[in-house]
Amino acid sequence: MGFGEETKAYREMIESALSGYIAGCGAPEQLKDAMEYSLKAGGKRLRPVLTLYVCDMLGGDVQRALPFACALEMIHTYSLIHDDLPCMDDDDFRRGRPSSHKVFGEANAVLAGDGLLSYAFDIMLKVMQKDFTPNALNAAIAVSRGAGVRGMVAGQVIDLASETADDPGIDQLRFIQDNKTAAMIKAAVLAGAYMAGGDEAQLDALSRYGDAYGVLFQMTDDILDVEGDFEGMGKTLGKDQQENKLTYISLYGLDKAKEIARETADEAIAAVDIFGERATLLRELAKSCLDRRS
Amino acid sequence: MGFGEETKAYREMIESALSGYIAGCGAPEQLKDAMEYSLKAGGKRLRPVLTLYVCDMLGGDVQRALPFACALEMIHTYSLIHDDLPCMDDDDFRRGRPSSHKVFGEANAVLAGDGLLSYAFDIMLKVMQKDFTPNALNAAIAVSRGAGVRGMVAGQVIDLASETADDPGIDQLRFIQDNKTAAMIKAAVLAGAYMAGGDEAQLDALSRYGDAYGVLFQMTDDILDVEGDFEGMGKTLGKDQQENKLTYISLYGLDKAKEIARETADEAIAAVDIFGERATLLRELAKSCLDRRS
Repeated sequence: MGFGEETKAYREMIESALSGYIAGCGAPEQLKDAMEYSLKAGGKRLRPVLTLYVCDMLGGDVQRALPFACALEMIHTYSLIHDDLPCMDDDDFRRGRPSSHKVFGEANAVLAGDGLLSYAFDIMLKVMQKDFTPNALNAAIAVSRGAGVRGMVAGQVIDLASETADDPGIDQLRFIQDNKTAAMIKAAVLAGAYMAGGDEAQLDALSRYGDAYGVLFQMTDDILDVEGDFEGMGKTLGKDQQENKLTYISLYGLDKAKEIARETADEAIAAVDIFGERATLLRELAKSCLDRRS
Repeated sequence: MGFGEETKAYREMIESALSGYIAGCGAPEQLKDAMEYSLKAGGKRLRPVLTLYVCDMLGGDVQRALPFACALEMIHTYSLIHDDLPCMDDDDFRRGRPSSHKVFGEANAVLAGDGLLSYAFDIMLKVMQKDFTPNALNAAIAVSRGAGVRGMVAGQVIDLASETADDPGIDQLRFIQDNKTAAMIKAAVLAGAYMAGGDEAQLDALSRYGDAYGVLFQMTDDILDVEGDFEGMGKTLGKDQQENKLTYISLYGLDKAKEIARETADEAIAAVDIFGERATLLRELAKSCLDRRS
């Protein structure tokens, strides 16, 4: 899975830094509690781990990439809080615990999301204030691009529209997966690369990896939503949700969707060829998507 | 009122720049439409006008302050969209038009707000990418501080909590007005000052002005909510909303609230004494709060 021992040190750094950021955020207790509840709900920290791994892989100082890694996780978390709201996906649970709006109420959930998004940018700006480098600015811009109206938010809007569209097709699906999921994963690898002073060829390779792996990650989730249902294991969607959801499976069927996933994994793996042995985790992550059963 | 002819040129610059930013934002049409609907709903542009006025007053180039002015207005607009949501203030109208969630649905309103907040930071980061100056970074940090978990979002959370608190008092009220309203107004004057290269004494004076005028602005709104109701004119709150709302009037009565407003106006006016004639608009704004009847 790539998220065992080899990334443990990164994950510990991330947990510790996130705790520190929350402790020092200066928000009123109510807001701090709601932000912390979702931020420390025990995700696998895929995006920030990617940032630190890539920074390390390119010989950078992971401590310098850490604030950007945390900002990415905060933005990811805000998107989950807002996504779970009754007016959005209406999910009462997230990672096995009641979702933010069930615990703190809808209004506080909206504000906890707004707070995490704002704080993520605040953290990145403060890094630049302490020690400005063009690389830090580029990392912040990569994060901002991934999160924003040409990234994650755009993907969310089109995903929502696809639920009620008459005949959503492959163009919409590609847009959704590129933006809603892949944009933030691409931002994560790029932020790590910038903070390591990566050159143009490296940034280009990682950009292509982020696009492909990000889409693959979403495809895998969609396949699991269906297969989990067949096999009675893992996370599943209700039949209604599956029927409304635009996926490669809904468009082409399960077998073809798996074939596309395999091709996309090959793309991701090929993209990081230039890094040789150093990119093992990036390759493993792509391969493991094909084997995921939970 | 200070928002007649003398600020017309600023307001035209702001309208034109906001239109340009929306046209070039690269968001999908649905998202762009929702962002534009609220952003171009015809507010009086208090915050961005303050940014440009202060920049001008200190001899700066207003064109350089303009992106920060627009970012502030986008952040202000996102806060109104989220504030109007059924789970927050549940307002169906804003500035005489149906609010965002009535037109685009709740989910799209949440996302339009998220989009505007993200885009505001994107714009500020892009300014720095084009031409980095420490002043631009300081302006962005001032905006971020005003908007964030030690600013506007903090004020919103405590405002919300005060509605159900047993016995909310003056400390809570001060916190709410300092953060929910004044923080963004202070950010507006500081952003203008930074972009003009203001010195420490100037920044300090404007910071005190922003605090005082921001609070005065909110006090005036609260007084109008009550007086409008008595006089049958202007904007009013329903009785239920008034009863739940923590204000100087609810704590001390109308006469004392007006006295506090007068003292706060004096504070604001005194704070900008060092700028002499140049700060006319800032003084006029504070004075006009005391005369506002709509």
